[in-house]
Amino acid sequence: MELKDIGEFGLIKRLTKNITLYKERVIVGVGDDVAVVKTEAEKYLLLTCDILIEGTHFTKETITPYQLGKKVVAINVSDIAAKGGIPKQALISIGLPKDTKVVYVDEIYGGIKEQSKKFNIDIVGGNTALSKDKIFIDLFLVGEIKPDLLLLRSGAKPDDKILVTGNLGDSSAGLKIIENQDLKLEDIKFEKKYKTKLKQAHLSPNPRLLESRIIAKSNFANSMMDISDGLSSDLAKICEASNVGAIIWEEKIPVSKETLAFAKSIGKSPFNFALHGGEDYELLFTIPKENVEIIIKKIQRETKTKVTEIGEIKDRKFGIKIVKTNGEMTPLNTYGWNHFKT
Amino acid sequence: MELKDIGEFGLIKRLTKNITLYKERVIVGVGDDVAVVKTEAEKYLLLTCDILIEGTHFTKETITPYQLGKKVVAINVSDIAAKGGIPKQALISIGLPKDTKVVYVDEIYGGIKEQSKKFNIDIVGGNTALSKDKIFIDLFLVGEIKPDLLLLRSGAKPDDKILVTGNLGDSSAGLKIIENQDLKLEDIKFEKKYKTKLKQAHLSPNPRLLESRIIAKSNFANSMMDISDGLSSDLAKICEASNVGAIIWEEKIPVSKETLAFAKSIGKSPFNFALHGGEDYELLFTIPKENVEIIIKKIQRETKTKVTEIGEIKDRKFGIKIVKTNGEMTPLNTYGWNHFKT
Repeated sequence: MELKDIGEFGLIKRLTKNITLYKERVIVGVGDDVAVVKTEAEKYLLLTCDILIEGTHFTKETITPYQLGKKVVAINVSDIAAKGGIPKQALISIGLPKDTKVVYVDEIYGGIKEQSKKFNIDIVGGNTALSKDKIFIDLFLVGEIKPDLLLLRSGAKPDDKILVTGNLGDSSAGLKIIENQDLKLEDIKFEKKYKTKLKQAHLSPNPRLLESRIIAKSNFANSMMDISDGLSSDLAKICEASNVGAIIWEEKIPVSKETLAFAKSIGKSPFNFALHGGEDYELLFTIPKENVEIIIKKIQRETKTKVTEIGEIKDRKFGIKIVKTNGEMTPLNTYGWNHFKT
Repeated sequence: MELKDIGEFGLIKRLTKNITLYKERVIVGVGDDVAVVKTEAEKYLLLTCDILIEGTHFTKETITPYQLGKKVVAINVSDIAAKGGIPKQALISIGLPKDTKVVYVDEIYGGIKEQSKKFNIDIVGGNTALSKDKIFIDLFLVGEIKPDLLLLRSGAKPDDKILVTGNLGDSSAGLKIIENQDLKLEDIKFEKKYKTKLKQAHLSPNPRLLESRIIAKSNFANSMMDISDGLSSDLAKICEASNVGAIIWEEKIPVSKETLAFAKSIGKSPFNFALHGGEDYELLFTIPKENVEIIIKKIQRETKTKVTEIGEIKDRKFGIKIVKTNGEMTPLNTYGWNHFKT
């Protein structure tokens, strides 16, 4: 069965029939011109949107529709987490070619609903439209936060330590494996389970919502964002927004044994992935040095997530520099994922 | 200059550099992971999104990029107006092929900014991404409303009168002219200025925000929506949501002299356009009969917009019927614009 067999309204009914709302604050959900939501005055509203486009962010051959649905929620949750907030309501805008299999759309929504449930998000509306030949899913996410917990890109201060959650580079290493299925990695002693783990990092990213709430509530951090375009590019954004410089140490950047092994097997530096690869969806934040140990331990204890200190905020005139593993200090190339150019 | 010459970040800087924020409630606008907005507790939040996709909703040959930008704001404002609300903040998600001319994107944003200014909307965020070969613009709009003014599709009551603003059918008549540039209308006495007016109705729709606020504040109406898929289809949505039936009189449906003349010139009934054409963005609302005259006069006086009574809400078991100009009563074909099927 294809979309042209059931039409737009048939599709909407099918997709929305088992949407359950978790919060009494949703006055009107799917099924009217707009969604209606009750607000709480003492909180700020957080608004974000992020999209996945076939041919740009994914191909049907390399990601399942279920993973696709989960991922579009995850990348938006990551943006709300980046500010220390709590995701609340989502609207889904989806473009579909006429010959799309209905079961394919069902699977996308299955992933969206599963992930929304995990993060307690209400799907309150959206829009389905005919797209000529590519699928895209645009998700609009509303979150909220108490004003005193809000963390921005613009708050970093000289002498702050720079910290990141998890490992960096797994997602872009995974993407490289996905895009080069004929890479004969087995031949060069790259274990199959490593391959699976890296691909998984790209296909099913895990936004750091719990970790971000711990950071926000601690009141230790001065700035925060999520790493979606690559550490180098995103650190530059914090520096620009905060009007500061930074130094990081290459050897301190957390890289998984899988990315290390993969980089070795193809004869590249793992830091290519960790510094300039995109879609890690880890948190990058800066805090005064006296709180570094406390926050690392607290996050590790409560979430099992590793947090690593990788550098320090400097004056703006210092620029953004990296100390390489060989001890050499150079300006950091702050390129990362850049649409249109790449 | 094409997008690949300036890249994503160059584009974002260019597009966002002259965004001015009108409201002190926007704590953080463009330039962080999310937008941050202060809420007012006594109000409800309204959330909506609507999209324009190249090849589905427009072609580059038939709409200017400036009109495109204006239109994507207008169709979303229309959704907020449909509930009686006030638009507040917008996020713009745009997909662009690599070889798009930068000036083309500038023009789109010119239209978006102009229209946002007109309706006092703050552009607080968004997302730019590479699209393989089609442009699309997805706009998310946040509005607000006092709970007691909120009008839903679900409030229509038997004996309510059914009213519409403006004329119906101009937009779809205009679309027909746009899609058939070789129609020799001049030959058959269809005036050129008529043609321009109908095309304009399709390319530059005018959401009925002022009118909707008058209706909402009057507290007369029981239900409301905007006509985007066509009167027949949208009336059916009110009936379904309200669990009622309806009767309308064909001869009462307001049709412009331009659509009348155009329909005549191509040998079709004008009601094809007025009943089943989409994108009118007029308001469809139901109110008890004792208030019909008052609201019609009030809207006419304050906005110069014509309001017409076209029918009456009935019990559900009555169904949805139309009395044709020849006096015959038949079930109303409630089809309208339906993605995928059409």
